[in-house]
Amino acid sequence: MDPSGLGSASPAVMEKSGTDAFPLTMNSSVKQETICIFGTGDYGRSLGFKMLQCGFSVVFGSRNPRMTSILPSGADVLSYSEAAQKSDIIIIAIHREHYDFLTELIEVLNGKILVDISNNLKINQYPESNAEHLAQLVPGAHVVKAFNTISAWALQSGALDASRQVFVCGNDSKAKQRVMDIARTLGLTPLDQGSLMAAKEIENYPLQLFPMWRFPFYLSAALCVFFFFYCVIRDVIYPYVNEKKDNTFLMAVSIPNRIFPVTALILLALVYLPGVIAAILQLYRGTKYHRFPDWLDHWMLCRKQLGLVALGFAFLHVLYTLVIPIRYYVRWRIRNSTVKLAISKKEDPFITSSAWLNDSYIALGILGFFLFVLLGITSLPSVSNKVNWREFRFVQSKLGYLTLILCTAHTLVYGGKKFLSPSALKWYLPSAYILALIIPCTVLVIKFILIMPCIDRTLTRIRQGWERSSKYSKSALNGKTYM
Amino acid sequence: MDPSGLGSASPAVMEKSGTDAFPLTMNSSVKQETICIFGTGDYGRSLGFKMLQCGFSVVFGSRNPRMTSILPSGADVLSYSEAAQKSDIIIIAIHREHYDFLTELIEVLNGKILVDISNNLKINQYPESNAEHLAQLVPGAHVVKAFNTISAWALQSGALDASRQVFVCGNDSKAKQRVMDIARTLGLTPLDQGSLMAAKEIENYPLQLFPMWRFPFYLSAALCVFFFFYCVIRDVIYPYVNEKKDNTFLMAVSIPNRIFPVTALILLALVYLPGVIAAILQLYRGTKYHRFPDWLDHWMLCRKQLGLVALGFAFLHVLYTLVIPIRYYVRWRIRNSTVKLAISKKEDPFITSSAWLNDSYIALGILGFFLFVLLGITSLPSVSNKVNWREFRFVQSKLGYLTLILCTAHTLVYGGKKFLSPSALKWYLPSAYILALIIPCTVLVIKFILIMPCIDRTLTRIRQGWERSSKYSKSALNGKTYM
Amino acid sequence: MDPSGLGSASPAVMEKSGTDAFPLTMNSSVKQETICIFGTGDYGRSLGFKMLQCGFSVVFGSRNPRMTSILPSGADVLSYSEAAQKSDIIIIAIHREHYDFLTELIEVLNGKILVDISNNLKINQYPESNAEHLAQLVPGAHVVKAFNTISAWALQSGALDASRQVFVCGNDSKAKQRVMDIARTLGLTPLDQGSLMAAKEIENYPLQLFPMWRFPFYLSAALCVFFFFYCVIRDVIYPYVNEKKDNTFLMAVSIPNRIFPVTALILLALVYLPGVIAAILQLYRGTKYHRFPDWLDHWMLCRKQLGLVALGFAFLHVLYTLVIPIRYYVRWRIRNSTVKLAISKKEDPFITSSAWLNDSYIALGILGFFLFVLLGITSLPSVSNKVNWREFRFVQSKLGYLTLILCTAHTLVYGGKKFLSPSALKWYLPSAYILALIIPCTVLVIKFILIMPCIDRTLTRIRQGWERSSKYSKSALNGKTYM
Repeated sequence: MDPSGLGSASPAVMEKSGTDAFPLTMNSSVKQETICIFGTGDYGRSLGFKMLQCGFSVVFGSRNPRMTSILPSGADVLSYSEAAQKSDIIIIAIHREHYDFLTELIEVLNGKILVDISNNLKINQYPESNAEHLAQLVPGAHVVKAFNTISAWALQSGALDASRQVFVCGNDSKAKQRVMDIARTLGLTPLDQGSLMAAKEIENYPLQLFPMWRFPFYLSAALCVFFFFYCVIRDVIYPYVNEKKDNTFLMAVSIPNRIFPVTALILLALVYLPGVIAAILQLYRGTKYHRFPDWLDHWMLCRKQLGLVALGFAFLHVLYTLVIPIRYYVRWRIRNSTVKLAISKKEDPFITSSAWLNDSYIALGILGFFLFVLLGITSLPSVSNKVNWREFRFVQSKLGYLTLILCTAHTLVYGGKKFLSPSALKWYLPSAYILALIIPCTVLVIKFILIMPCIDRTLTRIRQGWERSSKYSKSALNGKTYM
Repeated sequence: MDPSGLGSASPAVMEKSGTDAFPLTMNSSVKQETICIFGTGDYGRSLGFKMLQCGFSVVFGSRNPRMTSILPSGADVLSYSEAAQKSDIIIIAIHREHYDFLTELIEVLNGKILVDISNNLKINQYPESNAEHLAQLVPGAHVVKAFNTISAWALQSGALDASRQVFVCGNDSKAKQRVMDIARTLGLTPLDQGSLMAAKEIENYPLQLFPMWRFPFYLSAALCVFFFFYCVIRDVIYPYVNEKKDNTFLMAVSIPNRIFPVTALILLALVYLPGVIAAILQLYRGTKYHRFPDWLDHWMLCRKQLGLVALGFAFLHVLYTLVIPIRYYVRWRIRNSTVKLAISKKEDPFITSSAWLNDSYIALGILGFFLFVLLGITSLPSVSNKVNWREFRFVQSKLGYLTLILCTAHTLVYGGKKFLSPSALKWYLPSAYILALIIPCTVLVIKFILIMPCIDRTLTRIRQGWERSSKYSKSALNGKTYM
Repeated sequence: MDPSGLGSASPAVMEKSGTDAFPLTMNSSVKQETICIFGTGDYGRSLGFKMLQCGFSVVFGSRNPRMTSILPSGADVLSYSEAAQKSDIIIIAIHREHYDFLTELIEVLNGKILVDISNNLKINQYPESNAEHLAQLVPGAHVVKAFNTISAWALQSGALDASRQVFVCGNDSKAKQRVMDIARTLGLTPLDQGSLMAAKEIENYPLQLFPMWRFPFYLSAALCVFFFFYCVIRDVIYPYVNEKKDNTFLMAVSIPNRIFPVTALILLALVYLPGVIAAILQLYRGTKYHRFPDWLDHWMLCRKQLGLVALGFAFLHVLYTLVIPIRYYVRWRIRNSTVKLAISKKEDPFITSSAWLNDSYIALGILGFFLFVLLGITSLPSVSNKVNWREFRFVQSKLGYLTLILCTAHTLVYGGKKFLSPSALKWYLPSAYILALIIPCTVLVIKFILIMPCIDRTLTRIRQGWERSSKYSKSALNGKTYM
């Protein structure tokens, strides 16, 4: 997918190795910057080609410069030490395992900028990051970590659809600045990530596959599977055993439309449960200066993802609900009940309470979904960057709880008159929505207790740094004179 | 919510105060940077702990270093002047009211970087910003404003869901750069906001609660309340008085589904009304170099918010409309009318014009909503940053007016045959949608007049800088020779 | 639309020209920076006014300083050379055609920062960019390109809804930094774009009107028009000719609801077709180092836009489908069929296979649409910036193909029993959805062949740099020792 036409590179280019004439081969008014690339693998070649395209001079360093093949036309290939002398920026397009030979070049590399672009195969593969390892091997050089997040494909294709962000870090700010300028000239977006200590995180970044989404994903998958079998037992197997009715077709739409809202409601409640648990822990301990258990920390960090998965299920529930009237089964049922009424020449009486109940749970559901979508929109990175902490808290906490209340009320009213009536039990199993209500109701009841003035006052004081029954509490208050 | 385990900090740490040994207590290959924090309140402690975690040495400055308690283990606490000597970066974690004591330290602080992290309780509480006040108190120091937008909670929890943006400003670019590097090491995203003049805005930022959304919010709330009572009178009280019918259940779905589209249409028209008024004013005045009245300026600035609120109502209208066929009331009505037809053994004749009218207003509504959603998506910050001015104008102006035309036409065709017929009047009150049409139609008619060639030509010239009947007009044209 | 009140600028201000006293007229504690603006046209004046507002001193340079009119009060107007001496930053608010006079000022401008803010009327109007042209005219000055993406209107109105991004480029990094600081003080967001080589792109940027959207837009328009006439022939003209039935009303909702899904499915398949063609080309050529034909390159670059247009049509299809039960025509048809049943006193038998087919295609459609929306959300710039390459590939490739499979299956099952039955042919024309299935099925079949282990292995090797039957293949492998 390389638009370079490397395959047609003339052998003459290869034979020019060792000459100094290459900057003259390009007619440009600006003095060209020469960049050296160690390593002639796929990524090195892609990077070299892109740099040539963007007006740089490129010289490759190789173990066997005479035997090195297919390089971008216009680029030179020299031995490592010769190539390093051509430029003060050297890109190390070599795997970490082969870094050792660089110690032989320690004098040539002194004072030069070494750009570490390597990636590992596993997260935290080595105790220290590749860039820090490089900095230890060649202490006289300025090591900058960059480019590892950009794939060879993105470099070549100029595809704008993938992220063009280049995370850059390094201890020397001038070296970092120069590498960032090169990245910009290549059409990429460099992001300064601070000192070389950030290299580990930068190296782990491209290896991740939605780490924060795993727990929400597996949890929701487990909930879906559980409720699927629960509903199949109640709605397919039970009528088949009792009435020999073939209800299997319910598995396509009707049963998913029970699973999805139930999963969405439970996940939404699980977004707010850790906050409630944290508040209880703080009240019990009487201090905020005490670490939460690890599971609670992790749970709190993936609340946003839990909420978005819940929104996904809510969205599916809305779609599955709105298609109800165009389903063959529903049309058939309505038609037949109407025909029966017509044959018996009776009119259906209008029950106002049914109209009220039905319209109420529909309205509650719509409003809950609307607020849920609002919450989802504010969690888009570009939107949440535009709101300050106060606004973020207002939306995520106030609107979030309102959403939970509306969705719980939607489910409660949906149950309506038949809620907890024994006739709804099948093989002693209650409807799925009754199970779904347990966690949300618990969260709401505890939250309601927590916001009662007496408890809320204590909690607020704890969160502002006050500590109960600490032996340092007196001096702590003293120390707070100034803030 | 502090993962530091501060509660278990051994008293030994506190007694080390005054020793210089602290940099040795951490085994790190990099020379550690020492940062001084004045003030041992909650925020100072949170920041100190986070800095220790990220590899900095931290020394606290306190009025009573011996009496100061619970600090993060690893941090020293000294008197202000002793602490200030340990570092060239001093973070002032003290309320503005207590800044005065810093004048005593004026010599020690000379040439140091003072980081003002304070917030106020009210917007524009003081005539000058806290950071500028600090710079006046300690003229020899380089004052940098930073960190005030990050809450103690976000610092401690490492929560990625809230904004991690740190607005930084200051007159000395090197001092600013160092503070930005520290922010990056803490995992935050520093944003350079220029000189210390920006401090006021940065200090006001975290105190805001959706300032641009207030007017749209209150306006839409007022419209909703008005139309709610209007519809209740027409649809609930009128039938109750005339026919003793209990229609209260309409308040759950039917009446909201009249209020929402009406509010959405009026708000959408109000997005385009100020532009039309501005054009008339410019035509009347014959110049664009004349300030608009304040109300018009403010109105124009919150058009985006008005439009998004309108989109919210349109979204609700769509959901309320799509649930119509699953409502108990609607199903009951359709069933009964069918039963009546069946009993009377008549078939309903098909009226092509009704089919046309009905399908047209549905199609217009869907297309209008679709364009409306497109407009909403392009107003997302990350999307609007990707389009240039020409594209933005095209979307917001051309597509915007097309949306308004489609939505107005949707409402007009909805009225259809019964539009303005006297039978629709109840107690002389027309349907709500007729009231909703007034502003949109006015805007569209005026806009139509404004884009007529003769008027449009004059307006374009005015907007390019031309002025009618100005005594400077001749020389103004002269001055425009070059641009 | 200028809040400056320029019209009331007193003539006294103009007469102050030539004095040095202007910095004293503003009471500010900070030493004011003076900025010089060459040119007194609309944009120069808007910029000057904005700068005055933000605390800068402004001096205009003009050919005829005495004859220059209406300038912002507080700004001076001098001759070019006098004005240039007042400041080391000069903004060139002059059209490129008039740059030549600057050669006379070459000595005065030596060492100064010249800010080129010009735009052209056409993309690539001149061989080199205006900024590079300026740098050649005044070689001793540091030329910085900036501000050309900000309209005069955005400057004046302080409108936050338009993009506030200022692209800045230049060869001197200090000069660039100073211009970026000025932009920040004006409340804009400067983005460093590297060296002056980027100027051409920056100058072309504001002239573009959705360049990547053109091909998807025209293609989808062509598809819509074709399928509109196709459906009109089948559904309106055919019944009119054969049965004299007036079905014209179908053109409002029913026919669009055939066109939209068909177009969406074809466009979605066209997103994945170029990738499949590229893979075949690479397999055939045995190398990835060979340029693709231009049409394929261009096609691959606008896949994201194709996909988003397809999503738009899918969204319309969903809305058009969900309104089906509230259409007059549909209600009339259902009512009449029920009445007929009731009159004949028959009940409709329930056909389980119909229920299965109907529910399946609905469920497949909903799940396909759901994944499609997910794909659309991840293509939002702020979201795609948050995911790394591996995650992006996972979403766009794995989820993307799953979406295509679900949508194709939705269409296949929709056909159901009547699929390819001769009775569905009208004038030998099959239903539109059958035509729509050709491309998606082709893509899926080829993709299925490509992921078979034997073929996939070869393709993966080629994409990692391996080449078949190249005369350099041996040394190439050699050269890959290190990466």
